This record gives sequence, C-alpha cells and structure tokens, in this order.
Amino acid sequence: MTTIGFIGLGVMGAPMAANLVKAGYEVTGYNRSPAKVEAFRAAGGRGAASVAEAVDGAEVVITILPDSPDVEQVVLGEDGVLAHLATGAVLIDMSTIRPDVARDVAAAGSARGIRVLDAPVSGGEQGAIDATLSIMVGGADDAFRAAKPVLDAMGSTVVHVGPAGAGQTVKASNQLIVAGVLELVSEALVFLDAHGVDRQRAVEVLAGGLAGNAILDRKAAGMLERRFDPGFRVDLHHKDLGIVTAAAREAGVAIPLGAHVAGLMASLRAQGHGSLDHSALLLQVEQLSGRAGADDT
Amino acid sequence: MTTIGFIGLGVMGAPMAANLVKAGYEVTGYNRSPAKVEAFRAAGGRGAASVAEAVDGAEVVITILPDSPDVEQVVLGEDGVLAHLATGAVLIDMSTIRPDVARDVAAAGSARGIRVLDAPVSGGEQGAIDATLSIMVGGADDAFRAAKPVLDAMGSTVVHVGPAGAGQTVKASNQLIVAGVLELVSEALVFLDAHGVDRQRAVEVLAGGLAGNAILDRKAAGMLERRFDPGFRVDLHHKDLGIVTAAAREAGVAIPLGAHVAGLMASLRAQGHGSLDHSALLLQVEQLSGRAGADDT
Amino acid sequence: MTTIGFIGLGVMGAPMAANLVKAGYEVTGYNRSPAKVEAFRAAGGRGAASVAEAVDGAEVVITILPDSPDVEQVVLGEDGVLAHLATGAVLIDMSTIRPDVARDVAAAGSARGIRVLDAPVSGGEQGAIDATLSIMVGGADDAFRAAKPVLDAMGSTVVHVGPAGAGQTVKASNQLIVAGVLELVSEALVFLDAHGVDRQRAVEVLAGGLAGNAILDRKAAGMLERRFDPGFRVDLHHKDLGIVTAAAREAGVAIPLGAHVAGLMASLRAQGHGSLDHSALLLQVEQLSGRAGADDT
Amino acid sequence: MTTIGFIGLGVMGAPMAANLVKAGYEVTGYNRSPAKVEAFRAAGGRGAASVAEAVDGAEVVITILPDSPDVEQVVLGEDGVLAHLATGAVLIDMSTIRPDVARDVAAAGSARGIRVLDAPVSGGEQGAIDATLSIMVGGADDAFRAAKPVLDAMGSTVVHVGPAGAGQTVKASNQLIVAGVLELVSEALVFLDAHGVDRQRAVEVLAGGLAGNAILDRKAAGMLERRFDPGFRVDLHHKDLGIVTAAAREAGVAIPLGAHVAGLMASLRAQGHGSLDHSALLLQVEQLSGRAGADDT
Repeated sequence: MTTIGFIGLGVMGAPMAANLVKAGYEVTGYNRSPAKVEAFRAAGGRGAASVAEAVDGAEVVITILPDSPDVEQVVLGEDGVLAHLATGAVLIDMSTIRPDVARDVAAAGSARGIRVLDAPVSGGEQGAIDATLSIMVGGADDAFRAAKPVLDAMGSTVVHVGPAGAGQTVKASNQLIVAGVLELVSEALVFLDAHGVDRQRAVEVLAGGLAGNAILDRKAAGMLERRFDPGFRVDLHHKDLGIVTAAAREAGVAIPLGAHVAGLMASLRAQGHGSLDHSALLLQVEQLSGRAGADDT
Repeated sequence: MTTIGFIGLGVMGAPMAANLVKAGYEVTGYNRSPAKVEAFRAAGGRGAASVAEAVDGAEVVITILPDSPDVEQVVLGEDGVLAHLATGAVLIDMSTIRPDVARDVAAAGSARGIRVLDAPVSGGEQGAIDATLSIMVGGADDAFRAAKPVLDAMGSTVVHVGPAGAGQTVKASNQLIVAGVLELVSEALVFLDAHGVDRQRAVEVLAGGLAGNAILDRKAAGMLERRFDPGFRVDLHHKDLGIVTAAAREAGVAIPLGAHVAGLMASLRAQGHGSLDHSALLLQVEQLSGRAGADDT
Repeated sequence: MTTIGFIGLGVMGAPMAANLVKAGYEVTGYNRSPAKVEAFRAAGGRGAASVAEAVDGAEVVITILPDSPDVEQVVLGEDGVLAHLATGAVLIDMSTIRPDVARDVAAAGSARGIRVLDAPVSGGEQGAIDATLSIMVGGADDAFRAAKPVLDAMGSTVVHVGPAGAGQTVKASNQLIVAGVLELVSEALVFLDAHGVDRQRAVEVLAGGLAGNAILDRKAAGMLERRFDPGFRVDLHHKDLGIVTAAAREAGVAIPLGAHVAGLMASLRAQGHGSLDHSALLLQVEQLSGRAGADDT
Repeated sequence: MTTIGFIGLGVMGAPMAANLVKAGYEVTGYNRSPAKVEAFRAAGGRGAASVAEAVDGAEVVITILPDSPDVEQVVLGEDGVLAHLATGAVLIDMSTIRPDVARDVAAAGSARGIRVLDAPVSGGEQGAIDATLSIMVGGADDAFRAAKPVLDAMGSTVVHVGPAGAGQTVKASNQLIVAGVLELVSEALVFLDAHGVDRQRAVEVLAGGLAGNAILDRKAAGMLERRFDPGFRVDLHHKDLGIVTAAAREAGVAIPLGAHVAGLMASLRAQGHGSLDHSALLLQVEQLSGRAGADDT
C-alpha cells in the first residue's frame, strides 16, 4: 500500500488528506500549526512534527500551500521535501502557483531522481470535502499514471493536460475565466436592475442559453441576496490573477479582458474587500454606477 | 383558432413561422422578398403581398426584423402594422432592438388599444428550427398570458421578465455576457497554446468547474479547429453591443468589460471579419499576441 | 461693416459676443433667457427677442449652444435660423456637437444658398474672455475666408482643418486627448502619493520632459490642492465623449484608451460628480485605490 | 577635484560621461564591451578593465545599466561596486529600474557607509548629448547636495523628488504618462484620418490648447510621416511599463489607463515591432481599425 506524506492541512488540504485516509492510504500529515496536525490525527491520519518526518519513507508526497514562495521554501529549501525524499518517489504539488516555479520544482526534482507533478485543483472547500475536485495535472506520463489512483481519491475529474507547469497554466486560465465571468455577470445584474427587470427570472432565462455559465448557476443567487461570505476570497483571486497576468506577459499573449478584470479585482481589494467572496465584484460595479455601492455591506 | 400575421421570414423567422403552422395556427407570412413568401407557402403557410395584408384580421402579429429602424418603419410607419391591426390584438416583436424603441412601440400600440410584447430570442437558427428557443418577454401580464401558447410553439424556455422593454434589456445582457465569455475563452485558448498545453483536455477540465460555460461547451471545439462559419455573425453581435453600450450609458451603469469587448468586436469587424462567426474573436487575440492571426483564415 | 447675429449668450457666448462688439462689429444677440440678452445690451450689444429678430438682415450668424439637438432645433427648426437668413450669408456654428449633425446642418444651409462653417472652440471661459480661444473650423474655403476676420476677434489660433464637420472632428479629438491625459495625470499623482514622493517637485520635473502636457501645466496644481470647482464640468465632458465614441464607432476606428476613459468619466458622473471640474477624475482614481476617495470632497 | 567612476558607456552613458569630462572631472569609464571603453578614451576619458578598477579611489560612482538585474549584479555582486567603493563615497544609479530594487541598493550602500542616489533620466539620446536631461533624484538630502554639481553637468533639470526610490517612482510615472499620451495621440490621428481631416493643421490647433503635450510637439510629425526609427524602443518602454504596473499593483494603486496601454505596448512588441520607436503605437491603432496596419512598415 502506498504511503503518503501530506504537507499543508489547511481549508483545502485537511479534507483532501482525510479523503486519502478514507481511501485506505497510510497518510502522514504535517502543518506548521500543530493544532491542524492534531485535527488530522483525530481524523484518522498520522501526524508529523516536521517536513522531514512527513516525507521520510513516503512513496508519494503531496504539498498544498498558499503561494509560490511557500512551495519554494518547503520543497526546495535546505531542510525541505527534496532533501529528504527517496529517489523514485513522486511529489505532487497541488498548490496554485506560478507555472515557471512549477517548472523549476520539476527540474529540481528530476535532478534528484524524483518525479514531480503540478496538480492544482478547482471546486472549492465543498469539492475537497466531497472528493469531487477537478484536478489539472502537468508532468510526465509515467508520473501521472503512478499518481492517478491517489488523485482519484480526491477528485472526480483528473486530467493530464501536458508537461511540467501545464497544470498551473490551466489553473491560471481557469482563474482568468472565472474572474471575467464574475465581472460580466455583475455588470449584467446591475444593468438589469437599473432597467427595472425581474432579475431572478432574467438569471433563469440567461442561464439556459449561450450566456449560460457556472457563475449564473452557482453564484448569482447569492449575489442577488448580497451574500459575500467566502467561498473564495478576493485576496486569493487577486494573487492568482497576478500569476495569470505575469505568465501572459512573459509569453507575449494579449489578455485584454483578463488584464482589465485583474485591475478591477486589485481595486476591490485596495478598497478593503479582500476577505469577501470574489463575487463581491458586484459591489464595485454598483459603486462605479453610483448605486448602493461597496460601503453598504 | 388564433390567426397570426408573421412579418420577417428570414433565417430565424422562416423556421419559427413554420413551427407555428405545425402547431396548428393559421399563419399569414410576409417578407419584402417574394421568394421568401413563396418558400413559406411551400412550408404550408399563407402568403401576403404587403404588411397590411398580413396583418388584416390577425389576432396576433409577430415581427422579427434586423434592427431598430426596421421595426420603427414596419410597425410605426404610415402603412405599417399599427395602422392596420384591430383593437385588442397582440403584437409580439421578436426582433433584437433597443429597449427604448421597444418601449416606444409599446406606447404607440397602447395608444391604439393594441397590446405589445417585446420578445427577443436566443438559441440561434438551430433553436428556431427545433422550437427550443429561449424567449425573454417584456410587457403586461395579460398580454403575456394571451401570447404564451403562441410563444410555446416556438421556444422551450419562455420567461416573462418584466414590463415593456424588459425583454430587450435581458437580451442585451445576454449579448454582453456572450461576447465577454467568447473573448475570455479566446484569451485562455491562446494563453494555453503559448504554454504548450493540450487544449482539448484543458477545455474538458475547465468546462467541469466554476469556469464552465456554454461557450466552452458549444463553441470551443470549433474554435480549436478554426471554423468560423456562422452561426451568429460578428456584424450582428456588433450591432447588439451598440445597443448594450448605449443602454448602459443612458442608465449610468458601468460595464467596463462589456465596453471593452464591444471595442474588440468593433475592431474585428473593422478588420473585415464581419461575416465570420462571433467566435472569431479568437483571431484577434492571436493577432494581438503575434501568433498566426487574422490573415490566415 | 459686417452685421452679426449671435445666438447663445451663455458662459462662453457672452464674452465672445462682447469681444465682437469691442472689435467694432454690429452684433445683435439672442438667448432664451431675457436676462442674458439684457446683460448683452449692457455690454454694448443690441438685443433681440427672437431668433428671427437676431438673424434678420445679418451677414454672419453665430450660434453657440449646448448640444446637437439644440442646434438642430435652433438652426433647422420651423422658425429657425435657416428659415430667416438671407442667401449669401454665413452661418458659423461654434457649439460642440456631433460631426454628422454638423454635416447635416451644412447640407441644409447649402440647399438654401447659405454657407455654413462648424467652428467649435477650446480654451475655456478665460479664453473666451481674453479672445485667445483656439478655433477649429470645418467648411468651404471661401466661407472660411469670409468668416476669418470675425473669428480672429474671438480667438488667437484660428485654423481651417477641413470640409464640413472637420472642425467638430478635431474638437472631438481634443476632448479625447484632454480626458485621457487628465486620467493619466490622475493615475500618476495617486501612484506618486502612494510611494511617498514630493508631488509638486515631481510635477515640475515631469512637465519638463516628454511627459509634459497642458494638464500638468494648468491643472495639476489645482488637483493637488483638491480644488474641483469648474472650469469644464464633468457633465459636459461626458457629453463630448459620447460624441467621440459614437463618431469612432461609426468610422470603425479603434480608440481603446478613449473608450476606457469615456467609461471612467461616465462613472464619475453616475456617482454624482457631474458638476465638478473634469479634473475630478483624480477622485475616482483615489476611490479605486482605496485612498481618500470621492466622498471627502 | 572630484574623481568619478562611470559604469555603462552605452547610447546614453557615453555622451553623459563625455559631458563630465568636458566639465573638468576626472572620469574613469568601464563597460563590458572593450570597444566602448576605447571610444571613451578617445573622447578624453580614462578607461578601466573592470568594475573594480573604475571604482577604485573614486569619490562618486555613476552606474547606468539596462535593467534591475544588471544593477543588482554590478552594484551588489561579489566583485561589484559596493565591494570596492570607499566609505563616504556617493553612488548615483542613473538606470531606470524597479523602485524596490533602488531601495534595496540604497540600504545595501548605507550598511557599508556609502550614500546612494537613484537618479534616472529623461530626454533621450539628444538630451544626453546636449546635457539637457531631466534628472529625477531620490535619496538623502546631503547625498543630493554632494552630487548636485556632477548631475548639473549632465542635465538642465535636476530635481530632488524624495527619499530612496523616489527618483525611480517619478521615472515610472513619466513612462506611464508618455505611453498613454502616445496612444491617445495615435487614436486621435487615426480618428482624424478616417474623417478626412487635414491632420497637420489639426495637430497645430490641438497642440495650442488643453490637449497640448510634448508628443504632439515632438513626435506627431514623425508619426504622420510614418518614421518609426528609434528614438526610444518599444522593447525598452515595454520593460518600463512592467515596472509601472508591478509598482502600482504592489501599492494597491489603480492605473486603469496605464495598465491598458501596457497591454497595447506588449502586444505591439509581440507582433514583432520591439525595435521600432514607441510612437509605433500608431501602427497598432491602424491595425485595430482595419486601416493600413502594422505590416506595411
């Protein structure tokens, strides 16, 4: 049976690791905060007191951390994952980070005989709990095949999208589209309101046609009720759009709407709404339209 | 049995009128081009040689015409629909036009005792043929109730969204979202290509998550194969975005992404691509990214 | 000596008409508000009680009115300028209106043997008082030559820029550039402030280089002191940017920054700042940056 | 007499160093390319074979290098400027780099008892030759006073704008405004052309009013003649706009037009125009408007 080291027991990582335990894997979890390690033990996992301890003897190591510098430190750092992981093991980084950092990590692993996959997820906390995440995987074929059963225990859509970094690139595209559609739906909702239209019926008919999208299906009702508790925080989406715009700039790719919505998200955050759900883009459209606005939440 | 006058037997109107015939209505069709009237006769309808003849004695009149001035002329003009329609009849304008013109038409009808609905559609030629159109209806309750059976013979989603003009407002929102999502998907596809990702698999995984939308479902495959035969022409979407931006400006509503994509659509048209499908926004993203570009189609 | 009818004795028109009187012309002024006619009499002009009376017997008629519909009504209307003006006279419309309306007015004049110039101005109230306006003139050569001495009495830069409508087109370009530069300077000022730079010295050094512009020279000091009394009102600049975007759309010209700043100006107005000076774009940049913001004025 | 080490004898650095020689300073120049050192000797300077040799015994060291990493390496690197410069000396970095890197360099200097100024320039090659550069200086008062005579030998406007990094921040603002105004003028020129206006006369009248700016004065004539030989290259302006957008994002400042034009500049470069003058933004406006376009140069 595969032994797994799991580093990062946060909002997403904790339920993902618990699903691996449920699937019968022997999982040793580590987090900087001992309380989270303790909670994982209570959920049936093993706890480790250090990265080294979590990694030691593991055939597969999973990391899911906040941002690129965290991954660089935990994986590449002096006492990090690669310093302790055995040759032949597979490292699956499920953080959302910069594609170029993912490629660097893969190269560093390769130099030590360790196979690395970048495998960011979408689907949110609920998807993590229900093991219905979408997982977009970059890396070599054989590493993907080796990791597939482990990933299947955490997600319902597990797709190998290309070489190292490709998973992060697809995740970046995902965040570009999600932000843009959130903004478009916000603009439509304010537009409809200004013209006195019954918005719930409008959402119903819009959702059924070529304008249909997951934001209308899953988020519009909450937006109409002005519920902006996260969900996915503006702060995090702002971070991700930084990845998108940097990766597009590096590749010389024009993303006019993507860059525009990145600015709007940054502005929403600068106005103090970083901890709201990203659907709070609605507040900014209202503000720019002189209606209600960001201050009444 | 309800007798219907049907004016505008074009790509959309012809199959819609034919579906009314199939549903058992007595339909008299008129179009400026006699060939289209002849084709409608062949499909089982009656033909008229003038607006007056089509309208005479009808309980319901349907118009579906290219643009606001056409509706103004055919409905409000000297020898137009309102001049010939009997008091108590219902006029259903299914064209996509400016909300303010829709309200003017409704007011003009009301002044003559005629109930008017604005009822633009989405779903395209295929939806018109299959009678699966989404129909967004603005106008008074009793007029909607009277017209509902007729509309049900042409569409599968028929929603009353508000007072006169509301149908056009929802349609405008629909066109705003569709254009924006087409552009976002185009940006994502070029971004993924530039990073060497397998785009078909990427589309698969993107479609399953919060980024999921009808463009990914119905249009992305054609975009990847570079098929841009319409479908819905850039020229028409450009016209519709003119309605959106004017109506937003008039209402003081900020639509930053909507206005941005309106400019990109206008530019695509200015570059000579007006007769391509609107998904040709992909070509412009490629051009702006120095890749392939608009000229290789 | 040339006799002049002058219609529109507002903030701009009153000092312009007074300058014509000073230059020795016989000027008959008309305004809807009798008080303004009275004030013009006090300034040495003759007053008229109607358009007809102002125009009667004039060799040159000048109109300077708020917007396109005003010009259409006063010039083309039933009892308007063209109905009363003698063949061979010159009509100089100095309003800022749509280029296509200017062309319509020119054509209507031509049909009655009247030569029409469109001659919008820039330079503001102070320029009107000092007779230092820039005047951009569209129309036929001979009409320009005939009108030149009259125009020289009101402005210091009088340039014939092309055929009918060309003056309005250049004015539209002027308003496009002014709005854009106001926004760019606003962005720079907030950026500098956020980084703790001495902004007055920064403005000094920026003004001396390739970034130098009339906004830095004439407006930045007031912006730093947060004085937004007009000057030129947001409402009017918003109207003018509507002309710019419509004329660009009609011509198929891409004006990405122009369209963007038009949206920002519209938003500033929607937030209730229509009566501030257009340099109040600064407030919106502050608001979007979560700094001070529009509400503290 | 002050002895000066001068590192970076490129298009800008060579004439600047030559002006210091003319002003009577003893200047030792270094460049990676020996040919440039040789040319500097021919111009009356001393040549050095290494950074160490150029810096040794200097009271003032000037660096002017392409980008942030170059400055980090040459100044902070193992065998770099700080490793060889005597305590009490002044380092003036005249490169255009990221403000945060400028602050890092200042801190590193301070730790070794070396006073550091960031002093980027504007005015181009001609300004460097004529000693008429604008120089925007960040750093401590006493360092500025010490360096002022040296800076005066290279520029005509030398302004102390704030603490360490402030010079770079003002330069970033400069590049933001210049790029934006270039784009606005491009949009106006294409707009005027599309409407058949005499563009030279239009430029004349625009330059005299509130739309007046240094781009109209110095660049518009070349743009109308379609001369795009640099001047200042698109590649470099693209680099600088990367600094602007990153510094704005870091500070939470909204720069909607700045971000927009950064995307347009990036696109111009992606289309292969990186070595043209930045005024080639005109080509892109033409392309987006379906007129002439980027390919006919």
